[in-house]
Parts: sequence; structure tokens; C-alpha cells
Amino acid sequence: MKKIGIIIGSDSDLPIIEKATALLDEFDAPYEVHVFSAHRTPEEAKAFAVNASDNGFGVIIAAAGMAAHLAGAIAANTILPVIGIPCKSGALEGIDALLSTVMMPTGIPVATVAINGSANAALLSLEILALEDRELAKKLADKRRADSEKVLEKDRLISERFNKAGQA
Amino acid sequence: MKKIGIIIGSDSDLPIIEKATALLDEFDAPYEVHVFSAHRTPEEAKAFAVNASDNGFGVIIAAAGMAAHLAGAIAANTILPVIGIPCKSGALEGIDALLSTVMMPTGIPVATVAINGSANAALLSLEILALEDRELAKKLADKRRADSEKVLEKDRLISERFNKAGQA
Amino acid sequence: MKKIGIIIGSDSDLPIIEKATALLDEFDAPYEVHVFSAHRTPEEAKAFAVNASDNGFGVIIAAAGMAAHLAGAIAANTILPVIGIPCKSGALEGIDALLSTVMMPTGIPVATVAINGSANAALLSLEILALEDRELAKKLADKRRADSEKVLEKDRLISERFNKAGQA
Amino acid sequence: MKKIGIIIGSDSDLPIIEKATALLDEFDAPYEVHVFSAHRTPEEAKAFAVNASDNGFGVIIAAAGMAAHLAGAIAANTILPVIGIPCKSGALEGIDALLSTVMMPTGIPVATVAINGSANAALLSLEILALEDRELAKKLADKRRADSEKVLEKDRLISERFNKAGQA
Amino acid sequence: MKKIGIIIGSDSDLPIIEKATALLDEFDAPYEVHVFSAHRTPEEAKAFAVNASDNGFGVIIAAAGMAAHLAGAIAANTILPVIGIPCKSGALEGIDALLSTVMMPTGIPVATVAINGSANAALLSLEILALEDRELAKKLADKRRADSEKVLEKDRLISERFNKAGQA
Amino acid sequence: MKKIGIIIGSDSDLPIIEKATALLDEFDAPYEVHVFSAHRTPEEAKAFAVNASDNGFGVIIAAAGMAAHLAGAIAANTILPVIGIPCKSGALEGIDALLSTVMMPTGIPVATVAINGSANAALLSLEILALEDRELAKKLADKRRADSEKVLEKDRLISERFNKAGQA
Amino acid sequence: MKKIGIIIGSDSDLPIIEKATALLDEFDAPYEVHVFSAHRTPEEAKAFAVNASDNGFGVIIAAAGMAAHLAGAIAANTILPVIGIPCKSGALEGIDALLSTVMMPTGIPVATVAINGSANAALLSLEILALEDRELAKKLADKRRADSEKVLEKDRLISERFNKAGQA
Amino acid sequence: MKKIGIIIGSDSDLPIIEKATALLDEFDAPYEVHVFSAHRTPEEAKAFAVNASDNGFGVIIAAAGMAAHLAGAIAANTILPVIGIPCKSGALEGIDALLSTVMMPTGIPVATVAINGSANAALLSLEILALEDRELAKKLADKRRADSEKVLEKDRLISERFNKAGQA
Repeated sequence: MKKIGIIIGSDSDLPIIEKATALLDEFDAPYEVHVFSAHRTPEEAKAFAVNASDNGFGVIIAAAGMAAHLAGAIAANTILPVIGIPCKSGALEGIDALLSTVMMPTGIPVATVAINGSANAALLSLEILALEDRELAKKLADKRRADSEKVLEKDRLISERFNKAGQA
Repeated sequence: MKKIGIIIGSDSDLPIIEKATALLDEFDAPYEVHVFSAHRTPEEAKAFAVNASDNGFGVIIAAAGMAAHLAGAIAANTILPVIGIPCKSGALEGIDALLSTVMMPTGIPVATVAINGSANAALLSLEILALEDRELAKKLADKRRADSEKVLEKDRLISERFNKAGQA
Repeated sequence: MKKIGIIIGSDSDLPIIEKATALLDEFDAPYEVHVFSAHRTPEEAKAFAVNASDNGFGVIIAAAGMAAHLAGAIAANTILPVIGIPCKSGALEGIDALLSTVMMPTGIPVATVAINGSANAALLSLEILALEDRELAKKLADKRRADSEKVLEKDRLISERFNKAGQA
Repeated sequence: MKKIGIIIGSDSDLPIIEKATALLDEFDAPYEVHVFSAHRTPEEAKAFAVNASDNGFGVIIAAAGMAAHLAGAIAANTILPVIGIPCKSGALEGIDALLSTVMMPTGIPVATVAINGSANAALLSLEILALEDRELAKKLADKRRADSEKVLEKDRLISERFNKAGQA
Repeated sequence: MKKIGIIIGSDSDLPIIEKATALLDEFDAPYEVHVFSAHRTPEEAKAFAVNASDNGFGVIIAAAGMAAHLAGAIAANTILPVIGIPCKSGALEGIDALLSTVMMPTGIPVATVAINGSANAALLSLEILALEDRELAKKLADKRRADSEKVLEKDRLISERFNKAGQA
Repeated sequence: MKKIGIIIGSDSDLPIIEKATALLDEFDAPYEVHVFSAHRTPEEAKAFAVNASDNGFGVIIAAAGMAAHLAGAIAANTILPVIGIPCKSGALEGIDALLSTVMMPTGIPVATVAINGSANAALLSLEILALEDRELAKKLADKRRADSEKVLEKDRLISERFNKAGQA
Repeated sequence: MKKIGIIIGSDSDLPIIEKATALLDEFDAPYEVHVFSAHRTPEEAKAFAVNASDNGFGVIIAAAGMAAHLAGAIAANTILPVIGIPCKSGALEGIDALLSTVMMPTGIPVATVAINGSANAALLSLEILALEDRELAKKLADKRRADSEKVLEKDRLISERFNKAGQA
Repeated sequence: MKKIGIIIGSDSDLPIIEKATALLDEFDAPYEVHVFSAHRTPEEAKAFAVNASDNGFGVIIAAAGMAAHLAGAIAANTILPVIGIPCKSGALEGIDALLSTVMMPTGIPVATVAINGSANAALLSLEILALEDRELAKKLADKRRADSEKVLEKDRLISERFNKAGQA
């Protein structure tokens, strides 16, 4: 199975991607986490992107805040699918990172998820890898069903509580 | 090669996806275009998503404007990667569609591109399919180089023009 | 009297609708609360909407956050009036939910109230049901008068305090 | 059948509500159109609202732009359901009208639709009146089906065109 | 001297206007504080505005949050200058109140100050009354000078601290 | 009667204030128009403000776009009431000018009207001057009545047209 | 005199920088114009930045639209002062480019000017170079005076026109 | 070496500039800190700007919040490069200050950095002064390398931690 690369622009973004790593652990998916800055270590960010395919990566997730150029800088140096996570940080709380990540010009796509949406970034990376991995696809479908079941269970609890309250 | 499904929420969004279909044609990639509305034909949208994998699709691109629920509604019914294109339409000119598409809750990811960014949606779908298709990967790398060459050619023309102007 | 259906997209939205249930309790109005997700349990959400009229519901209130598709997904499957409550949650604190709920395309209306405005959603549902229920209409008019009286009482207290202060 | 009152804050908003009147005409629904300003003719606006129920109205639609107070001013004087249409006008193109209409304080609900969303306002008013009018309910369901059929027809045309193009 | 009327839309806005009343107390300016809601006590709000001039008021300050219609509703019923204070409250934290207060249509002006800017509202009301009150004008000029002196004193303290630090 | 000073930050803002000058002409109110820039002719702007009261001005209206500092710069140099008109210009179309004009810090109020709201700025200046001018006050009240009558006339025309259409 | 480098991210941004080149021509300042894309020709952009100081450049101006990473990418590779011009383009008309350019993380500053503000970018570059160039400083001061004189001339024309109109 | 002037609009902004003074201390760069208000002490702000060049300043940094006119007011009175720091304060948390600072009209540039971005303002001032100061340029390049090394060190720690976790 191909690896998922997770790049954060600053170690302060580490808490944001913990939902992603937890989810990848749950799926036993191989991944690496790196700290590369589009601005402070542009060479290392580029080198990672250029060699990612040869190094066994299939998808790269990049998380950054404010004027978030990281995902775009990675995407400019690889044709692997790149997923961007805009991070909530600074005075504008993520809307700057969202626009800086998603409004990419033609030619270099970044698959953007919600602000701080690292769990969905991980799921999206698995969906991509599952295209050629039936077992992984089955696990993803199972997780969907488990998620649904959790919602249904909550519905049972809550609808019952309010019906009782209504009858009281 | 797996097919790419392109779903538009309204036929008025057709001009927006023309850059996507032109690009897929350029790559000789197989695709289908459908008009399904998350609200007016929810059953057909769902049926397409549920059966997409069995019907040979590998990626689904969904384009919609305003309170753009289409990509999310598709994604809720498949574990194929779903790419969302927020369309510029209505009084808010796409910012509503962007937020409605990208701010998905945990569990159902949508890979969002820029407002009206259909060319990048097509490229992203090809990057995903190229993970297991060396020839397609080569074509994508070739296109990147061609795009770079175009920029460099423009640099030659423009820098020369201004240098001459400067010397005059 | 017809029932009011209250659907929340996640049990984390439960505190937001407590003002609605308290108000409906105050009016002795029959209601049910359910947890259905437009994305994680789309079938159940749809089934509820399709059968709502036959099951004795007259109005449906749907509350969801972020890319809030719930109210629209319900409205797509019923011709009962659907009231949408955009919930304050996530990095954008409700503006995403507001636009995702209110900017519906032509054909499927959602009666949108303020972000977290669950009390007004409940009042609006009662106003709708009061069209054919004189007693309920009278109760609503009484509540309006009681609300006015509370404001007037506060005016008496506050204007007196400041006038005294002014004379001191 | 109860009448629908349509109030516009200025005769310049008349083109915006034409989709609403066309739709009500299509349903043979009785309605009146008035021009009342929350600021320039507050007495007339109030009088209309206070007497609306006695005058046979069941729902009131109010359309206004900029600091759009009209729907709220109407709603403050009746317990009939009031639907607000934020109009696109002025430098901010409707976002001011949207917030001025939808962010109502507790006690006085306004059922807000999309900016310039007059067709949906009309449909919502019909959904409300259809609660006690089986024939109207049937017409609304028929229209939904007709709308769906139009989308399906467009899907047939467009999917066929692109498939042919793909085969060419 | 004419009185200043301060109207708040809800007693929860009382803390916001405390800077205004403190400032008016400092100037020994006569004022009254009232709680009137544009929506819950529209009659009382109107009556206050209609009679304000006869009752000895020269300026009216109106403070309200969210879809803040209060200042406009007052202004619609008087030709006295009306000052609007948009209050920070609710999910949107005042931007809704700002637009609802300042974007008034032609014919009914509201002199809008900053979100929660009650001190400036008080100063503006005094500037208006000072047009025909030389003593008040002198006090305002004195306050300006005192404000300037405070800034200059802070400049002395801070510039000295940093210069010493710089020399150390 | 005191004069009204109208300052524009650039002659390109001249069309915006034409509604103000037309309205002041209608009221036979004395006024002057000047072009002063807070940034390009700060001395002249300041001199005008410092001497405005002695030169017979009672109110100053300042109109500027983008980072609109003009009204604040005038207000910093006079205790006359200063009215700010944010002008729609540049890429952000007036929202920058609105925030730059209205969000003044404590101590220096600017009475802000809507983006491009020059007619209301003129009316507000007249309301201020009418405090000590019974004849002007009467004219303002007359204009309000005339404005109302125009709305009522439009109501008659439009409500009649739609009623006829309804009967046809 | 050191040269000014002007980099545009796309030749479609060329019209935006024409005010900058015209102004630099007016000052006889040496400059070069290049087209480099942060994403399509990242190597060339980097090489330009790395060698800019050795190649005789003193300031670099970078203009780009949408998710505008260009100025940041240049700044990451040089310690020369870098000026960013956010370009108005795409559905969001420059607010995305503004945030992507100005909200840079600590360590890599970009001196950002207004959306499309290329004339000010040129002036800022000249102000920087004038620090060690008395003649250039004198020219800048002269231009300021000329700009002021133009405003004063417009004031004379416009104030005279309105005074005459007032007297008529 | 020329001095850097740091002007804050209020002593409440002092904490925001502490990163700037710490950084300038680290570089042993000479600077002064002053408190001048564009509105409360406009004369002192202007006098500082007019004399700054003669008093040995090479760059001026101005930090202010809300309707932040300070940087523009300084820039209007000097041809030295002026760097603006929009401060996060008030209900709008800095977006008002950002637009008030960056959207300057043609003729008076302000080099704007991120909201609260005082460290970058200091770095930018040093980059400007380093144009004619080889030693300072070397220090800046050294700092860049040290910053990079810190990121690389964090990458080593974090990538190792996750790889171990992955192997466990």
C-alpha cells in the first residue's frame, strides 16, 4: 500500500492533524509526518514533493494557516494528488488559510477540505488509495456504516428522551 | 481506465465545466456528464453515486452554485473520491457555494477546488487515476512541463519588450 | 393538532434547540426530536421527510452547522414547510451554515431563521400551525403581549434608575 | 383560500417579485401586492400587518434591500407567518439585506429565503397554505414532479451529447 | 439645554451604553435612558420618537444588536438627528448590526458610530447640541485637549522606557 | 443659517455627492464643496477643519473611498459634527471605506451613513441644523410627508395593477 | 542605482502593473519585468529571487491573483524587500489575493499594497531606494508636491463652480 | 545606521509591538517607540513624520487598530518607507484595521504586514536598511538560516516520533 505523507507548516499545527493520524492508525494505513515550511524550508518542502512518488507516497496532505501556501507549493512539485487543510490560526481564524489553499490558479489543483478538517483529509486520502485496494474500500464502507449506526443510536436515545418528556 | 463522472446541478452550470471536459478530451480520458439536482432529483443523484463504482467510475466531479449541496449529497452515497466545484452564480457570486461545498462535517469528505475551477477539478481527477496508470502519469508530467514552457515563453516576450522599452 | 418535527444533524447541536423545545412545551405543542444526518444517515432523513405528512407532522425544523445541507435535504423530500436553523459551530461560527441553509436554489424553499435562532424557529412553526387553530393563535398573541410587557417593565426599572441618578 | 400579501419596500424592487407573482398566478392563488416602506410609510405598513388576518391574508411576503427592516416591521405587528426576501441592491449587493432580514432577535421570527429568492418565497407561502388545502398540496407535489422531470430531460439531452462527443 | 434620549433595544445592551452615560454625566448633560424594542414594543418606540422634540429632546441615541432595526425605526418617526450604535451580540458579533444600522435607504438617515461605540455616540450628541451652546463647545474642546495630553503623557513614559532600554 | 461643508477626497467622488448638493439646493441651504485629500493635501484639510466653525460652518460632510481617512482626519481637527460618506470605489467596492469611516476609536466620532449615501448625509446635516431653526424643521417634516405620499401613490398604482391582473 | 524587479504571476496581470512601469519610467528608474509563476515555474521564480541581489536588484515587486503565493515564494528566497500586489481576478475579485499576500507567517515579510495598487508599489520601491539616493528623494518630494498641487487646483475649480451655482 | 521609528496609536497596542522590539534588540538595531494618535495628537504624529528623515530615521513602523489611519497619516507627511501593522482590537478583530491600512489610494503607499504582524514589520524594516549595510544583510541571512534549522530540527523530532509510533 502506498504511503500518505502529512506535511505541517509549523509544529504548532500538530494538534490539528491528530484526528488525521488517529484515523490513519485506525485503518492501519502507512504514513509519515513532516514539518516543512513553504517559506522557511522551501527546499526541503520541494525535495519531499519531487521525490514523493519514488519514495512510495500516493497522496500528500498539507496543513498550514494564515497565507497558507504549503499545499500549493507541494502541489507545484508533484503530480500526486495533494490535499490541503486550511488551519485556524491568527486573527482571521482560518478564512485566510481557506482562500489561500482553495483558490488555486489553473494548472495546479489542491483538494481542499474544511478549516481544521484533518479527519476528512485522512478519509479522502484513503478513498483515493482505495480505488485500487478492495480491502481498504471495504474498510471505508464499514466505517461509513458504523458512523451511520452511531447517528441512529443517538436518534434512538434522543427521540425517546423527548417523547417521554412530551408524555410526562 | 476508470471513468470520471461529471455531475452538474443545473444545466446553467454547463459553461463552467467546459474547461473540464476540454481537458479530459485532451487526455483522452473517459467521462460522462449528467445533470442531477441534490434537491430536484435527489433519487437520481443518489442512484448515480451508489452505483458509480460498479458502473466503472473512479472519481466523481460535482459542480453546483449557491447553497451547493450536490457534492456532499454525492459523497454521502459513495466512497469514491468526490471533487466539488463551487459555481459562481446568484447574488453572492460563489462564496456561498464555496462554503457549502468545502465546510463538510467529519466523515464525508469533498475535495474542493476554486470557485468555477473546473480545469483543476479535471486535473485532480486525472492525478487520482494516474496513481495506477503510468502512461497517464507521464501525460500529466508532460502537461506540467508544457505549461511551464508557456510561462517561460511569455517571460521571454515580456521581459524583452520591457527591456527594449527601458533602453529606448 | 399537527406535530412539529425537530431534526438535528448531530447530537452536539442538542443544546441549540433547547430553547425551541422549551417554547413548544410552554405552548403544549406536540413535537418529536430526531437526530438525522444529511450525510451519514441520508436514507433515514429522507424517509422521515417523505412520510412526515402522513405521520401527522405539519412543520419540520432542521438544525445543522457548517456546510449545513440538512434543511435542504429534508425540504427536497416533502412539501411541508421546512424551517432551517443554521448552527454556530466550527471555525466560521455559523456564517457557513447560514449561507448553506438560506441560499437555496429555486424550487425547494427553506424558511431560514437566525444563526442558533431556535426559539424563533419554534415560534414560526406555531404561527404556521395557528393559521387553522384559533386557540393557538390566541396563545401566540398573548405571548406577544407578555413579551411586550416584560420590555415595558424593564423600561420602567431602567428609566427610573437613570432618572434618579440624573437627579442625584 | 387565504390570500398572500406581497409587500415591497420600494417600487424599484418590483422586478424582483415578478417570479413570485408569476408562480402564484400559475397556482391560481389569490394575492395582493403593496408598496409600503418600513421607514417612509411605517403607519401604512403597520396597519396592513395588524389587519392582515382579519382581511383574509394567511401569509405575508416582504421584500426589501439594504438595511432591510420591512419584514421585521411587518412581523412585529402580526402573528401570521412572515416571509422575508432580502433584495440585491446598493453597494453591498444584498448581504446587508440578508443579515438585516434573517438575524431577527428572539420573539419575532422572519422566514428568510435567498437573496432575490422570490420564487421560493411564493412556494413557501403555498406550502404553508397547503397544510389545510389538499388540492393545493397536490398541485405543489405535481409541480415538484414536473420540476424533476425537467431536470431529468436535461440530463438525457446533455449526457447524450457528451457521450456522442466522447465516441466521436 | 436639550435632553439626549438613549434607547436600548434590550436590557442586555445596558453595559454597552455605560460609557455613554458616564460621559454625559461628566458633561452634566441631561439625558434619559429607555428600553424600547423595535419589534416587541414598536408602539412605545414610535411614541417616544414622535413626541421627542416636544418633550425637550434634541438628539436620540439608539443601540441594538443583530438585525438592528431600532435606530431606523426611531428615525422614521422624528426629524431629530438619530445616532445608531450597532451592538456586538449573537453569532456574527456586530457586523449584522452594523450593516442593519448604517445601510439605511434614502430619506431616513441614521448617524452610525462603531460597533459598541457608545462613548463616541455620546460625544457626537454633545457636538450636535454644542452648535448653539458655547459653554458646551468649550467643554468639548477642553476634553479634546485633555485627551491629547493623556496620549502625550503616555508617549513620554513609553518613549523614555524604550530609550533607556535601548541604552542599557 | 450655518453653512454645510462638503469635502471630497478626490474629484472622482464628485458624482457621488451630487444627490447631496441637489438636496441642499432644494432646501436653499448654504454649502461649500471642496476637494481635500487626507493624504495628498493634509494641511488644507486640517486648516479647513480648524477654521470651519469660525468660518460659519455648522456641519461638515466628508466623502472618501478605499482606506477612507478623510472624515476622521477632519473630525480630529474640529468639534463640529462630522458626517462620513464611505464611497464605493476600488476592488472592494466600499466595504473598506465603510469600515475605515465608521470604526473610529473613542474620542473622535464620525456620523457615518451608507456607502454612497450622500442624500442621507445632506438630510442628516439639515436635521442637525434644524434643531435651532423652526423653518428648516418644518421643511424637513414637509419633505417626509411628501416622501410618504410618493410611496403611497406608488402603492395605489401597483396594488391596483396587480388586483386588475388578478381579476383578469 | 539598484534595479527594481517586477514579477507577474501570469501575463494576464500585465495591465495591472502598467501604472507601476509608467511611474518608474517617469522617475527614470531602472527595472525589469518578468513572468514567473509560483506554481508553474517555481524554479525560475526561485532562481530570480536567489540571484536578485547579485544581479543588481534592490527591491522586488510581485503581483498575483487568487491564492496569490508569488510574493511569498519570492520573499522566501531573498532578504531583499519584497512588495506584494494582490491582483483583482477570479470570482472573489482580489480579497483572496489580498489575504494570501498580506497574512504571511512570522519570518518572511511581504510589504503588501492595495488590491491592484501597482502605482503605490512602484512609489514604495522608490522610497526604499531613495534612502541612499538624495536625488531620487528630491524627485519623490517634488512628485508629492505636484500631486498636492493637482488636488488644490481641483479644489479651486470645484469649489468655485459650486459657489457660483450657489449664488445663481 | 539609520533608526527605526515605531509609532503606536494607543498604549493598549504596546503588547502587539513587543515582538518587533525584541527582534530589533536581537539585531542591535537603533529604534524609538512613540505613542501618537492620528486623531488625538495629529500634530505630534505629523511633526514626527515631517522631521523623521532629518532626525535620523530610515523607516517608520505604525501600528493601529479599528479605523487605523495612523500609518497613512504618517506616510502622508514623509517620503520615508512606512510600514503599517493592523492591530487586532474591537469587535471586528483586525479586518477593519487591515483594510484601513492596506487599501491606500494612489500616491501614498503603506507597506502593510499581517494583522498583529509586528515581527515581520521589524524584519521588513531591517531588510530595507540592509540594502546599504552588508553586515546587517549578513545577519538577516544568518537569521533565515537559523529559522530554517529550527524547522528542520522540529521535522526530525516529529517525523521520528510518528515513525516510531507507526512501527509500534
